[in-house]
Amino acid sequence: MNVNGQHHRSIVGDPAAREVSYIDQTRLPHEFAIKSARTMSEMAHAIRTMEVRGAPLIGVTAAFGIAMALQDDASDAGLNAARATLLATRPTAVNLAWALKRICEYSQAFPAAERAAAAWGEAQRIADEDVALNHAIGRHTLPIIQGLAEARHGAPVHILTHCNAGWVATVDWGTALSGIYQAHDGGVPLHVWVDETRPRKQGLITAWELREHGVPHTVIADNAGGHLMQHGRVDMVIVGADRVTRRGDVCNKIGTYLKALAAHDNGVPFYAAVPSPTIDFSIDNAMLEIEIEERSADEMRHVRGLDLSGRPTSVQVLPDLSPAANPGFDVTPARLVTGIITEKGTAAPQELARLLGQG
Amino acid sequence: MNVNGQHHRSIVGDPAAREVSYIDQTRLPHEFAIKSARTMSEMAHAIRTMEVRGAPLIGVTAAFGIAMALQDDASDAGLNAARATLLATRPTAVNLAWALKRICEYSQAFPAAERAAAAWGEAQRIADEDVALNHAIGRHTLPIIQGLAEARHGAPVHILTHCNAGWVATVDWGTALSGIYQAHDGGVPLHVWVDETRPRKQGLITAWELREHGVPHTVIADNAGGHLMQHGRVDMVIVGADRVTRRGDVCNKIGTYLKALAAHDNGVPFYAAVPSPTIDFSIDNAMLEIEIEERSADEMRHVRGLDLSGRPTSVQVLPDLSPAANPGFDVTPARLVTGIITEKGTAAPQELARLLGQG
Repeated sequence: MNVNGQHHRSIVGDPAAREVSYIDQTRLPHEFAIKSARTMSEMAHAIRTMEVRGAPLIGVTAAFGIAMALQDDASDAGLNAARATLLATRPTAVNLAWALKRICEYSQAFPAAERAAAAWGEAQRIADEDVALNHAIGRHTLPIIQGLAEARHGAPVHILTHCNAGWVATVDWGTALSGIYQAHDGGVPLHVWVDETRPRKQGLITAWELREHGVPHTVIADNAGGHLMQHGRVDMVIVGADRVTRRGDVCNKIGTYLKALAAHDNGVPFYAAVPSPTIDFSIDNAMLEIEIEERSADEMRHVRGLDLSGRPTSVQVLPDLSPAANPGFDVTPARLVTGIITEKGTAAPQELARLLGQG
Repeated sequence: MNVNGQHHRSIVGDPAAREVSYIDQTRLPHEFAIKSARTMSEMAHAIRTMEVRGAPLIGVTAAFGIAMALQDDASDAGLNAARATLLATRPTAVNLAWALKRICEYSQAFPAAERAAAAWGEAQRIADEDVALNHAIGRHTLPIIQGLAEARHGAPVHILTHCNAGWVATVDWGTALSGIYQAHDGGVPLHVWVDETRPRKQGLITAWELREHGVPHTVIADNAGGHLMQHGRVDMVIVGADRVTRRGDVCNKIGTYLKALAAHDNGVPFYAAVPSPTIDFSIDNAMLEIEIEERSADEMRHVRGLDLSGRPTSVQVLPDLSPAANPGFDVTPARLVTGIITEKGTAAPQELARLLGQG
């Protein structure tokens, strides 16, 4: 989407220059910085330090890393070593393992001399497919927003989102935000309530995205959404998801469940927008079967920002002596979910399996 | 309650020395600093800058301020000027106006030469009555916690609280935390989940209180409570309140409603602990009749803490270009409230008027 009025993808490969450029997300929301990399180690470092984040984007980044590795050493041993290094950067990301498996199997079918070129091509295809997938998710979100706009007779549609499921978490468009961008670009009047999303504050990245693309929005504390819904100031909630189960339970960033409860209590529709591979048909009961990652209490203890001179720094808000807990995700039960929006269409939770041909 | 193993009140008057000492809450949770004041202007400054905060404590502080003012000028004109200055420090606090009315009317009945001494005595009575009131609230909370402890056969009772309704917001004991202190002191095993409470992070003061008094606790993001309740890790929610209506709607810090929804969804009892004057029998429907204060977006934009050298400072987390909203309170409808705990006993919302003789 747009930054400073210019269209960007979050990652761009240049096979001729053997170079990849990407947005350094650790500098957001205060600074828009594009970094470039020419080696697999640099790509691994970018994932490990969260310069790139977001499941789809991590997969694409790793795929480009394989292409770079094959330039230096196209042997099976070289390929396997690179794959292992990249896989170890963020062990829990499903997309990472998926993208690595795909590009390694594809490249290995070629003679050593052609492997690097083949891998560059395949990495590019993975990136392009991600863009197409996210665009399709937005295409299916669009009529929902348009319907709300019609019901509001031209008054802006107010949409609440939690965390960042925007274009910088993918190659372009994003998942939850894809339909918002398409509606905005198509002239549908809308406004987005952006949850700050403590402790990591990914909402600030969402706010940055929306601001740069010119979409009206307001950042709020995670505590505020329920109050806004009680007063009729939210027409729809849309989030991404890390995992959706067969019956439509949505595992997403911690705090999503609280917003879904408030939406349900106030008759506000609640949607999760996800690529279909995020739906795990092997899981039925998310509450029993999905283990929730307990993240470092440091995320509660220290807050990053800019000091008075505008330099990035952090402050300690919670003393070391105070214990803290930091569960990373929660599960929103299907009964609170209006619909799951995928690249293949939208379905109520109980219709999900049928939509995706798993019924 | 205790700090460093010693009992403290949040404010202490010394009529002989014509001095008041109080905890400077702007230094919490990182530093425990006691300040002293000898003039009405210093007391007004302490309220204005939130060195003292919490409705009951503000009222007591203002009363001591009147006693100090009367020492310098015991005329009616002097009294009225002091009252006006103190009233203007925090215009929305109901307790402030109440305490000022009480001490001014009381003092004015005395001849000028006796007014200062009379006011010191009355200020001290207001402080002592606050302690007794809060202790009584805790006494009525205690059997609820004891009941949960019995049901758990000696395993700790897990209690979630939002914001700070602890002893430093009052003269001693607090409201929501009073019963927790009494249960802990009485040997009931318990553990408190402390909501951080963005944007002002009053939960950090709650954590400081509990830590100093030796009560087991864990700080969590405001997003986490629902997830903990889904997994059976919360046995009870208790909060304070800024205002409770005739039918038992609870107006409290923003985000309380979301926790009440989660408690209701998971069968966890939800209580508000308040002195009976907080219950406003003139209001029936809180959603329609209570206007919610919109606070400065700066509270979303800047975060205070300690820098690497341990000096207090703040960082900017949200850029100036990103709009933010900051509603200060929300309303939890009576249907989500298990009980209102007052100094006169506990009542379900529909029994509240009868308990307080307003039926």
